Amino acid sequence: MSGKRMGRQTVMLEHPPSIVGHACVVGHKEGEGPLAATFDFISQDDSFGERSWEKAESAMQRLALSTALSKAGLSPTALDYVLAGDLLNQCIGTGFAVRGQDVPFLGLYGACSTMAESLSLAAMLLDGGFANHAAAMTSSHFCSAERQYRAPLEYGGQRPPTAQWTVTGSGCIILADTGPGPCVTHVTTGKIVDKGIKDAANMGAAMAPAAYHTIKTHLEETGRKPSEYDLIVTGDLGQLGRDIVADWFRRDGVELNNLSDCGTLIFDLEGQDVHCGGSGCGCSAVVLAGLLMRGMREGRWKRLLFCGTGALLSPTSTQQGESIPSICHAVALEVGR
Amino acid sequence: MSGKRMGRQTVMLEHPPSIVGHACVVGHKEGEGPLAATFDFISQDDSFGERSWEKAESAMQRLALSTALSKAGLSPTALDYVLAGDLLNQCIGTGFAVRGQDVPFLGLYGACSTMAESLSLAAMLLDGGFANHAAAMTSSHFCSAERQYRAPLEYGGQRPPTAQWTVTGSGCIILADTGPGPCVTHVTTGKIVDKGIKDAANMGAAMAPAAYHTIKTHLEETGRKPSEYDLIVTGDLGQLGRDIVADWFRRDGVELNNLSDCGTLIFDLEGQDVHCGGSGCGCSAVVLAGLLMRGMREGRWKRLLFCGTGALLSPTSTQQGESIPSICHAVALEVGR
Repeated sequence: MSGKRMGRQTVMLEHPPSIVGHACVVGHKEGEGPLAATFDFISQDDSFGERSWEKAESAMQRLALSTALSKAGLSPTALDYVLAGDLLNQCIGTGFAVRGQDVPFLGLYGACSTMAESLSLAAMLLDGGFANHAAAMTSSHFCSAERQYRAPLEYGGQRPPTAQWTVTGSGCIILADTGPGPCVTHVTTGKIVDKGIKDAANMGAAMAPAAYHTIKTHLEETGRKPSEYDLIVTGDLGQLGRDIVADWFRRDGVELNNLSDCGTLIFDLEGQDVHCGGSGCGCSAVVLAGLLMRGMREGRWKRLLFCGTGALLSPTSTQQGESIPSICHAVALEVGR
Repeated sequence: MSGKRMGRQTVMLEHPPSIVGHACVVGHKEGEGPLAATFDFISQDDSFGERSWEKAESAMQRLALSTALSKAGLSPTALDYVLAGDLLNQCIGTGFAVRGQDVPFLGLYGACSTMAESLSLAAMLLDGGFANHAAAMTSSHFCSAERQYRAPLEYGGQRPPTAQWTVTGSGCIILADTGPGPCVTHVTTGKIVDKGIKDAANMGAAMAPAAYHTIKTHLEETGRKPSEYDLIVTGDLGQLGRDIVADWFRRDGVELNNLSDCGTLIFDLEGQDVHCGGSGCGCSAVVLAGLLMRGMREGRWKRLLFCGTGALLSPTSTQQGESIPSICHAVALEVGR
C-alpha cells in the first residue's frame, strides 16, 4: 500500500494543494436567497444572454472560470488541466464552455458529486507532481435540468414535498501546488451505494446512505473525530437527506452537531418554495466557492469536510424500474497549514 | 513546472504503471469481424441476458471487469479505483455496472475518448502514489446508442456514407504500480478542438483535427519521431477521419506509415456494411484490450501510441445548430521497460 493511502478509500496529500482562486456565478432565484452576499455574480437574466438554457449553462461556466482565474491572478494558459462536468446529457454544458479555452481537459461525470470529484482529482494530480495549476468546475441550470430530467417548464408540473430545486449556478476552484491555503489535505473517494430507493423525486433519501458511508469511512480511515471538523457539509442532500445522515450517525451514538448541507444553505426553504432545498452540480459548487471559501478565509472555519453527493440515475433507468445508485466523495479542507 | 511535465499537455510517468490485466467483451457483429480471435467473450445475444439495451451495456462492463481482474489474478477488493464512463445519458451503463463492486469509483465522460482518458488518469493516480491497482473501463452498445443518439432501431433509418457503426463492446484494463508491462510511459491530455463541422453523421471529420493536434503535440513535447512508434492508433476516427489525419501530417511533410485506427480495424468495412468503420467508447476499448494488448505481449509492437478520440456533442447541441467540439487523449505504451 502506498504511503499516501490511509485506507481503502482515503488518501492524504503530502503537499496539500492550495486553493488560489474561486468564483461562483448564479441565477436570479439564488441571488434572492440567504447566500446572496457570497456570490461573485448574480444574473437577473437566467439565459445569461444566450439563446438556449444549455448555452446559458456554458456561459455560466465560462464566467466562473474566467472570474476564478482573474481572482487568482492567472491566465488560462497557466492551467495545466481543467477537470469539469455537469448534469446535461453528454455533459455539453462543460464541453461547450471549455471549447476555446486552450487548456488540457478531463471530462467527468459524477452527477451532483462532480464538484467534489473534480476537486479530488485536481488535488491528486497536483500532489502527484503532474500539474502546477488545475481548475475544478461544474454547473447546473434549473431550466435545462427540468427540461431534461422532468418536464418542460411550460407544463407546470407539481413537485412532491421531497423534491429539491436545481440550482442555476456554476462554481470554479483553482488549485495551485503551493499557496497560503485553504488547502486540500485528504481525499476520500466514494463507492456506489444503492439502498433501493426508486423515487426520482426523493434523491435526498437515495443519496443519504452514500453520504453516511463516505463520512463514516473518512473518519475511520483518518482517525479523526467529527468534532475535529468545524463543519461537515454535504452537497446536496436537502433537508430530508441531511436529517437521515444525522439520524444514522445518532444510531451509531455519534451526534453530528456540525453537519450542514449545501442544499439547505442556499435557499430559504420556507420562503422560496423549494421544498427540501437546492440540488444540482452547481449547488455544492457555488456554496463551496462562495460561502465556504469566504468563511475559511475569514477564519470562521479552519477545518472543513466537503462531501459532494451524486445520484447516478437517468430518466431511462427510472423508466426501466431501476433504483438510484448514489455516491459521495469527501474532500478535507484546512487553513493554516 | 513539475519534473514530470514535458510540456503543456504531456507528462512522463516516473514509475510507468504496468498493465496486468485486460479483457474485452463484444457483441455478435463484432465477433464476425476480423478481430474475432482477439476478444475474450463474444455474445451471440446482444441483450447479454438483460431486459434492456442499457442493462446489457452494464452487463458487458461487469463481465469485462471480472474477466480482467481474473486474468490479473486479483479480487475487486484489490482495486483502489475504478475509472470509467460510457456514452449513455448520465453514464448509466457505468453507474449500474460499478454498483455493487465495492470499489472507489470515479466517473468520467470523454465520449469515445473515455478509454484513453480513464487510462491516463489511472496511470497518473498510480504513478502519483495514490493507488496500487486501478481499473480503466468503458463500453458502448449499438442498440442503446442508436436509440439515444439517432432513432429507434425499428425505424430503419438510412445511414450516410460518412457514418460509423457503434461497437457493442466493453473493454477493461487493470493497471498495477509494478509489473512486467506493457507499461504506460507518457500521457498527453487533449484540448478541445472544434473546426466547425456540424454533421453528426460525420464524426470522423469532426474528430480528426483533435487527433492531429494531440499527436503532433505529443511528438513535439516528447521529442519523438513518428517512426519511434511501431504503431500510432487512433480510436475511433473511421476511414475518413484517419485519412484526414494522415493527410494533414503529409502537408507538414510527415508520412505517418504507422497510423491505424480502431474503427477501421474492428470491422471489415466492405463486407460488414459499416460505412466508415466502428465508433463508440467500446470500439477503442476492445481493440486496445484485445488486438493491441495481444500484439504487445507477443512482441509484434514494442512501442505504441494509443490516441482516443471523442466528439463532445449531444443530440440537443446538434438540434441547436452547434458544431462538434472534439478531443483526443494520447497514451504511450511500451513493453520491456
